[in-house]
Amino acid sequence: MAAERLVVIGGDAAGMSAASQARRFKGPEELEIVAFERGDFASYSACGIPYWVGGDVERRDDLVARTPQEHRERAIDLRMRTEVLEIDTDRRRVRARDLDSGSETWTGFDKLVIATGARPVRPPLPGIDAPGVHGVQTLGDGQALIETLTRTSGGGRAVVVGAGYIGVEMAEALLKRGYEVTVLHRDEQPMATLDPDMGRLVHEAMDGLGITTVGAAAVTKILTGDDGRVRAVATDGAEYPADVVVLGIGVRPETALAEAAGLPLGPHGGLLTDLSMRVRGHEDIWAGGDCVEVLDLITGTTRHIALGTHANKHGQIIGANVGGDYGTFPGVVGTAVSKVCDREIARTGLREKDARAAGLQYVSATIESTGTAGYLPGARLMTVKMLAERRTGRLLGVQIVGGEGAAKRVDIAAVALTARMTVEQMTALDLGYAPPFSPVWDPVLVAARKATAAVRRAGW
Amino acid sequence: MAAERLVVIGGDAAGMSAASQARRFKGPEELEIVAFERGDFASYSACGIPYWVGGDVERRDDLVARTPQEHRERAIDLRMRTEVLEIDTDRRRVRARDLDSGSETWTGFDKLVIATGARPVRPPLPGIDAPGVHGVQTLGDGQALIETLTRTSGGGRAVVVGAGYIGVEMAEALLKRGYEVTVLHRDEQPMATLDPDMGRLVHEAMDGLGITTVGAAAVTKILTGDDGRVRAVATDGAEYPADVVVLGIGVRPETALAEAAGLPLGPHGGLLTDLSMRVRGHEDIWAGGDCVEVLDLITGTTRHIALGTHANKHGQIIGANVGGDYGTFPGVVGTAVSKVCDREIARTGLREKDARAAGLQYVSATIESTGTAGYLPGARLMTVKMLAERRTGRLLGVQIVGGEGAAKRVDIAAVALTARMTVEQMTALDLGYAPPFSPVWDPVLVAARKATAAVRRAGW
Repeated sequence: MAAERLVVIGGDAAGMSAASQARRFKGPEELEIVAFERGDFASYSACGIPYWVGGDVERRDDLVARTPQEHRERAIDLRMRTEVLEIDTDRRRVRARDLDSGSETWTGFDKLVIATGARPVRPPLPGIDAPGVHGVQTLGDGQALIETLTRTSGGGRAVVVGAGYIGVEMAEALLKRGYEVTVLHRDEQPMATLDPDMGRLVHEAMDGLGITTVGAAAVTKILTGDDGRVRAVATDGAEYPADVVVLGIGVRPETALAEAAGLPLGPHGGLLTDLSMRVRGHEDIWAGGDCVEVLDLITGTTRHIALGTHANKHGQIIGANVGGDYGTFPGVVGTAVSKVCDREIARTGLREKDARAAGLQYVSATIESTGTAGYLPGARLMTVKMLAERRTGRLLGVQIVGGEGAAKRVDIAAVALTARMTVEQMTALDLGYAPPFSPVWDPVLVAARKATAAVRRAGW
Repeated sequence: MAAERLVVIGGDAAGMSAASQARRFKGPEELEIVAFERGDFASYSACGIPYWVGGDVERRDDLVARTPQEHRERAIDLRMRTEVLEIDTDRRRVRARDLDSGSETWTGFDKLVIATGARPVRPPLPGIDAPGVHGVQTLGDGQALIETLTRTSGGGRAVVVGAGYIGVEMAEALLKRGYEVTVLHRDEQPMATLDPDMGRLVHEAMDGLGITTVGAAAVTKILTGDDGRVRAVATDGAEYPADVVVLGIGVRPETALAEAAGLPLGPHGGLLTDLSMRVRGHEDIWAGGDCVEVLDLITGTTRHIALGTHANKHGQIIGANVGGDYGTFPGVVGTAVSKVCDREIARTGLREKDARAAGLQYVSATIESTGTAGYLPGARLMTVKMLAERRTGRLLGVQIVGGEGAAKRVDIAAVALTARMTVEQMTALDLGYAPPFSPVWDPVLVAARKATAAVRRAGW
């Protein structure tokens, strides 16, 4: 029997996880694997870029999980700097261009994995392409930013546009590099993935670190100097001098190819799959990572969440299914963690506005506690906010802002959300207790108790 | 209507939580509360004693959550140094002796809470009562130990008997105080609450810290010097010189009073209650904390687990039920966390021998990973062992030994056990990911993947 051919579009987390996992199940005599990557790097941690820029990670290659050569040694024909331009689903082939030679070739597939990732939002503002204005989506972006920082070494003024995960992490990185950092963001508070009352705690923490945050700021243009380089960022009301600008405004699914091929897209522009990560209506086409929409297990709607951990899971599941094993990705509850210096930030499930949008009645409870027994020196404060459905008491979401040990506590809520627990059930959870790890009531339990009381008070 | 009277026996976590919670629901005009405590302290954190002895906590009173006076200000008639000698269930009264005056009085009750705690195992060995041999169960014990340590200040040789939670925590405390520490323990490896393969990791960590551990060691006597003070600990095979000895052999439920009153005890000597924490067969008698047995949610048997976090939950539930609200304690999954210096230790659910004793067929998977992205400096290794039921794939237990960030990950498994998840369901958990908090696959997910593969391999 001739080998089947698997074609993978996109050489990062989802695509190369799929290829590697498929290879584990099927050798080259059974399955030929060809992967196309238009960029210069494959299988790297984009999430690690802020820590490379900030200096915690020394070398770019530390962020590379597996080199192209290592993939090739596993009999994966990974073609770098080769961009897929067209997917022909009828004839089961893709057209790709070698970006160096310009030559184009058609490659047939029996099975196809689309892992084209996401592209950063880059508003068409005057000056946005000026030298000194940087995205931080790819390793190449990170490299370019570091070159700019090295140019202006010894610090200067940095403006970060956007105060989501990338924005706050880049603010920390630039602060560590000695910059005076200003973060401009659209919403009232930074970290709009939190409710504003919790975002305010992040705001206060950034203030305390000496990072200036400016809310409700709509950037109108990037101003340049005589040398053509960025010199300031203008909003409706003000100008912010800048030696370097980092854009962290968010990403959108990169699905132009898929759309042109007539594949189904969801409301956020991402590919729609079933839980085996097969593209809907296409038995032999899979998609995963930042280019797909995923099921929200709480609301039953689809969401677009660009996050390396999901991309890796998708890839692993696709690879198992392609390889003859099986797996499913049931969906997400919306967990995310981050930090800005020593302030940890976490969320899972629904915010108040998500609950309202989903037509759910809810109660909310916010508590302050410590990550360790309060009597231990250096006990760190944390604030936990918990939302529960009004009548049923079902957990809807948790947000945490606090010191060391705060963020990963959100995992307790992530599991409880997956299991559709009520906040009352959560009050009895047998969580790890010892003074260096938790007060006798873990902060999540304290929040669950307060939320339970709120559910009872609200009644049926 | 005359006020009802609630009598509480035992003034620590369970008893005083019950009293305080009941008081929140009912004022003194409705409910009179009398609490008896035979010791000198109430409402303190016994779990904090190792950190006080080790010097992290400066003052004894830092471990006191609420003073007797503070309880009295909340209209709780707390009688210190007053020991209850008899419970008369027929006439609904207790007989108590004032330990200072020796006078005895009967006090009637409408409702009774038994929170008599646990007593440390203290084998009747020659020399066990010699000066310099210390338990660490009560604040008074801690005070006496600190006095001994101050006597021999500048260090010396310490022998800890027992290598469970108290044993390893006291080994750390004594090491911090400058002692040469030897830990003698009965089993092959320290931390017998882990499987021996995981206990070996604790052993190695203790070796690395300079703590000598001696396994399979049965203490036969305590040897004393001419001054009558301890000078060594003898086992079958050897003598270990000691300036101070700490006993950490475990505890048993303190239920002599309850037994004499004919109340129902379980196989481990603890009181048996229903899930509202009512003593079985007695509508107006509750019990909680270290003197009760609790339901093991995995095996359906009862266990005795002396742990402050359970005692506080019991007290809170008893207080709510006594106060006219409601609550239940559904049971435990057996979560415990600890550390010895920078090595964290955690477990939940069943060990291999527990699974065998429960007649369960299981598969096991052990993995090594890091607590943060591996490319960040100082990424700490951790080992995670996961047990799953052979055919169903249901999670049975997790054990973790590793560096910073290891122990509290056990909470993920604690919630999953409560929700009766399979290890395959766990592979899809939406856990918090960002490089400073986790590799792209959280170690618990890696273990779940390996356990899932083992379940599949084992087949039906």
